[in-house]
Amino acid sequence: MSILIALAQMEVVPGRPDLNTGTMLSIIRQAKADGVQLLLFPEMAVPGYLLGDLWEQPAFIRDCAAYGEEIVRASDEMGIVFGNIALDEQKINCDGRIRKYNACFVAQHGRLISDGSSPYPFRIKTLMPNYREFDDSRHFTSLQQVANENNQPLSAYMQPTALCFGEEQIQLGCLLCEDGWSEDYPVNPTAMLKANGATLLVNLSASPFTLGKNTKRTRVFAKHARENNVPLLYVNQISLQNNGKTIYAFDGNSLAYQPDGTIATSCGAYDNSVQLVRFHAGRNRLEPLTPVALAAEDEAEIIYQTLSFGATRFLAQTGIKRLVIGLSGGIDSAVAAAFFAFLLGPQNVLLINMPSRYNSPVTQSLARTLADNLGCPYAVVPIDESYEHTVEQLSTTPIRLGSETTFLPTPFTGLTLENIQARDRSSRILAAFASAFGAAFTCNANKSELTVGYTTFYGDLGGCFALLGDLWKHQVYRLGHYLNQVVYPAPVIPAAIFTIRPSAELSDKQTVGVGGDPLHYPYHDYLFQSFVERWDKAAPEDIARWYQLSQLEEKLGCEPGLAAKLFPTPKDFFDDLERWWRLFTGLGVAKRIQAPPVMAVSRRSFGFDHREAQLPVYFSRNYYKIKEDLLRS
Amino acid sequence: MSILIALAQMEVVPGRPDLNTGTMLSIIRQAKADGVQLLLFPEMAVPGYLLGDLWEQPAFIRDCAAYGEEIVRASDEMGIVFGNIALDEQKINCDGRIRKYNACFVAQHGRLISDGSSPYPFRIKTLMPNYREFDDSRHFTSLQQVANENNQPLSAYMQPTALCFGEEQIQLGCLLCEDGWSEDYPVNPTAMLKANGATLLVNLSASPFTLGKNTKRTRVFAKHARENNVPLLYVNQISLQNNGKTIYAFDGNSLAYQPDGTIATSCGAYDNSVQLVRFHAGRNRLEPLTPVALAAEDEAEIIYQTLSFGATRFLAQTGIKRLVIGLSGGIDSAVAAAFFAFLLGPQNVLLINMPSRYNSPVTQSLARTLADNLGCPYAVVPIDESYEHTVEQLSTTPIRLGSETTFLPTPFTGLTLENIQARDRSSRILAAFASAFGAAFTCNANKSELTVGYTTFYGDLGGCFALLGDLWKHQVYRLGHYLNQVVYPAPVIPAAIFTIRPSAELSDKQTVGVGGDPLHYPYHDYLFQSFVERWDKAAPEDIARWYQLSQLEEKLGCEPGLAAKLFPTPKDFFDDLERWWRLFTGLGVAKRIQAPPVMAVSRRSFGFDHREAQLPVYFSRNYYKIKEDLLRS
Repeated sequence: MSILIALAQMEVVPGRPDLNTGTMLSIIRQAKADGVQLLLFPEMAVPGYLLGDLWEQPAFIRDCAAYGEEIVRASDEMGIVFGNIALDEQKINCDGRIRKYNACFVAQHGRLISDGSSPYPFRIKTLMPNYREFDDSRHFTSLQQVANENNQPLSAYMQPTALCFGEEQIQLGCLLCEDGWSEDYPVNPTAMLKANGATLLVNLSASPFTLGKNTKRTRVFAKHARENNVPLLYVNQISLQNNGKTIYAFDGNSLAYQPDGTIATSCGAYDNSVQLVRFHAGRNRLEPLTPVALAAEDEAEIIYQTLSFGATRFLAQTGIKRLVIGLSGGIDSAVAAAFFAFLLGPQNVLLINMPSRYNSPVTQSLARTLADNLGCPYAVVPIDESYEHTVEQLSTTPIRLGSETTFLPTPFTGLTLENIQARDRSSRILAAFASAFGAAFTCNANKSELTVGYTTFYGDLGGCFALLGDLWKHQVYRLGHYLNQVVYPAPVIPAAIFTIRPSAELSDKQTVGVGGDPLHYPYHDYLFQSFVERWDKAAPEDIARWYQLSQLEEKLGCEPGLAAKLFPTPKDFFDDLERWWRLFTGLGVAKRIQAPPVMAVSRRSFGFDHREAQLPVYFSRNYYKIKEDLLRS
Repeated sequence: MSILIALAQMEVVPGRPDLNTGTMLSIIRQAKADGVQLLLFPEMAVPGYLLGDLWEQPAFIRDCAAYGEEIVRASDEMGIVFGNIALDEQKINCDGRIRKYNACFVAQHGRLISDGSSPYPFRIKTLMPNYREFDDSRHFTSLQQVANENNQPLSAYMQPTALCFGEEQIQLGCLLCEDGWSEDYPVNPTAMLKANGATLLVNLSASPFTLGKNTKRTRVFAKHARENNVPLLYVNQISLQNNGKTIYAFDGNSLAYQPDGTIATSCGAYDNSVQLVRFHAGRNRLEPLTPVALAAEDEAEIIYQTLSFGATRFLAQTGIKRLVIGLSGGIDSAVAAAFFAFLLGPQNVLLINMPSRYNSPVTQSLARTLADNLGCPYAVVPIDESYEHTVEQLSTTPIRLGSETTFLPTPFTGLTLENIQARDRSSRILAAFASAFGAAFTCNANKSELTVGYTTFYGDLGGCFALLGDLWKHQVYRLGHYLNQVVYPAPVIPAAIFTIRPSAELSDKQTVGVGGDPLHYPYHDYLFQSFVERWDKAAPEDIARWYQLSQLEEKLGCEPGLAAKLFPTPKDFFDDLERWWRLFTGLGVAKRIQAPPVMAVSRRSFGFDHREAQLPVYFSRNYYKIKEDLLRS
């Protein structure tokens, strides 16, 4: 005897309960035809998950609850487990609004199946993530709070749900996403369910992709299965959702774990699929009906998959069918061009090179070659005439004050003149060409640049979204190689683009010949990563201490010996550190506030994930002490 | 016998524990000289409060904790009560990071005074606000959680602190901000403290200004004093803090309530002051030593005070000393110009009118008059030549694809041509002039425009911050009158600017003569307000229902009879509603993601306060039902 279970790794459209309910009803019909006995959908399958404060709109949440009732009615002898918002209009949240739960519904025979313990006929999420991009506790009341209100221990409410399939009965332990990530919480919902008799665990999730998370998840979830000696079925959404500033791909990668922690079956990454598995309750064993679809392991491949899924959905959601890309001949815009030409078809990507007197024939020719290789429409739009007109207006416009007339002080600074060029390219040319081409234009800034604001407001910081905004410069290069070697049948990005010195080409001092970018990426990529991505964020005090202890490269994860090579004296080291720290915590923040949305890849992306305030630049007292020690010695 | 207490409504600089500790030590010295026996500082007086994820940086939080020890050491027979972050490095938060508390420290004789109950020698914040701009539960562990961990009821840990001043003893009940706003929470910390013997209540706060909040606070806090028959001292920061997208003024307005709920003394709005009050414990009575400084009641005055404080600090924090303002002759830029000319001195505000063929002589002349009235430097920078150059480049640039050459399709749409002008003004002219003038340029968008994205990316949406971005159009007019009538000795904004028809002047169809803005502000201001600012956000379903029930104007709070006047038929009504809803939830979100920071005034400002995702446009099923009913009838 066994039960046929389906893991429905469906694609959820955030904020569209009508579409999601339609998808679910169609999966339900197919599952019934396939003889499925228990059908599992992800967390928040009806409304979507990252919706901002849309949870405060009663019309929307009541509509979602009503759609959920249709799913319940569609169950018959086949049981359906799905995630949706649940309301208790007789109660309030701590913010005074309608009481809302992030809930797991179990339905069979057209009605909800209660677990016999909690005051509601659904299961309430217990652990409320409130870090990174998560805001659960802002909107949802937890099961812990419900237990407290009713003077019950949490364990009394963590009961499995008894489900019968003919003569077979199972005790289904239902968890929602974070409930399974209990390592740092004082309670362990998974173990409570097992202690209360669960014979099968399901974890419905809405879990956004992060580099490295799948490995960690399997470590954590396999441990739950093993420690409790129970099979565990993890069903994640595939979806593209955002919190405004940060865009997340939900990668699916749903998995079924045997009681020994091994993987029985999986749904693969970004695959809108339903996987079947048989549960032999008597033998405490899952029997997969399809082979395990192993997730990619190569970082460039995973990043490409994620960006590809993400960009496709983001452009579709925002109604963008064509793109304009400013092509400088450098690596970032080259990677963006190759990526989008493949994604949208080359005819839908207009590449524009915008030379000034400072652009070398080398980069102009590389841009042209790339456009030819990709088969994209290509235009050259010089900015010199407009630049000169702007400088002339700046120099010759009379400024009247009462009866006096003055002029702006000259000569203008290098920065004033450089930024005019950068803004002319994006806000004058790219934006206008995009509008006339029926397109949007991209922001090609990478994470290294965004960290320290090495971009110009309304210049290269502009664009509809920042595809590469969560990739360090070295990851952009790697993605470029992946496009050349794997995505395209033959290399499209000219080899010289990988080797040419990165430069903004905005003045005589910034060229691919002399000067170049002030960032030494093999070091600064890793320095900046320590500011942003470490779980305990590094500050100059930490960096200085590691430097003092000769642990710097080891702690940062960069090439050994780099610091000594780059910084002949401690003063050079501290000057560099302070320069970038000032920019990261100063103007960089101001620029990120007005930056386009970033496609999240890393364990900490800018925007809603890494929340920040514009603050005065600060160095701790210990930093100054270490610095003083080292400068004295 | 009595105790002399000081309410130190200090100005807190966020992220600068060194400066704040300096301020506190200097106040402590003065208080000792004045014979103060108990000195009260606000919540998070050492680190500041809205710091984003800076709380995840161990170097910073340890530095703050160390600075707090200096405050403790500065106490002697004078008791000091202050807010700071507290760490327990032996424990973790639920996010796995170092355990952090938002704490109230009571110090006397150079050491911390314990309340004898909780495991720590400080008081931990109990209620963690997690709505609007607040993120307390993201970073801090609550007293409730500590009580749960130790299997104690919360009330066991809500103990007053015994403090002796000579022979006089008081039982000080310490609360932190939200602890006093317990109406929607299952527990009431204030009542618990009283039940456990508190003879005097203090509430240390870091409470950002919101229109209407002071009235509500006095209602809530006076009730606590009355119900518990105990005096209550409320000490708030004055400060300017932000969460990136949203900037908050902390207005002080600290208050001392008598046991009957009447106000004994107050510190006033945005006033960096220390107020003294005597507490007669035996008589259960406060004796103020200074008269009550009543808060302003006129909305325009309160808004002006807040913007004035906010803009001063924001510009100082970001190092901006001069501004460039694009002056169109319309109300928004006129109000911004008059405001900043007064704030920075007219010589530091360069006003630029940027006419095209579409700008009427009327608005150009109004701009000029305003500049003369203000005494600001004034320049006229026409955009026609640049506009024509851009259109020519658009029309004549060959687009190469392999051996073929094409051109962009003409004629260009009105929107393409209009947006070129808007971007030319901001990104080409204002940005360049600002750079050469040593200034930044302002974003003059108001909340009505921001709600539906009636602005151009990199055009009028650009700027260093949006002073008026949380004011509805009618509030901008009111602020203009306030500047004319109260701030300046004689009116500076010409009367015609208040009466001219608002228009973008970007085409023959958009002029002050014909066309004008598509928004009818006396209606749309209030419609949009219902989308954004209602505690339970209104959706088209609610609007349609109110319209159906003839309750629309009453519910929105606008002029009766407006809907019938504006919308001859239900179809007109629904077309208008859907048009703006689509923009509010569609392109408006995309624009807000890249908008400058907004100075918060209302009960819901865009940015981090009103969190939002880019989502597909959605109408609930009930909306369609109501619409169908009304269109049929």
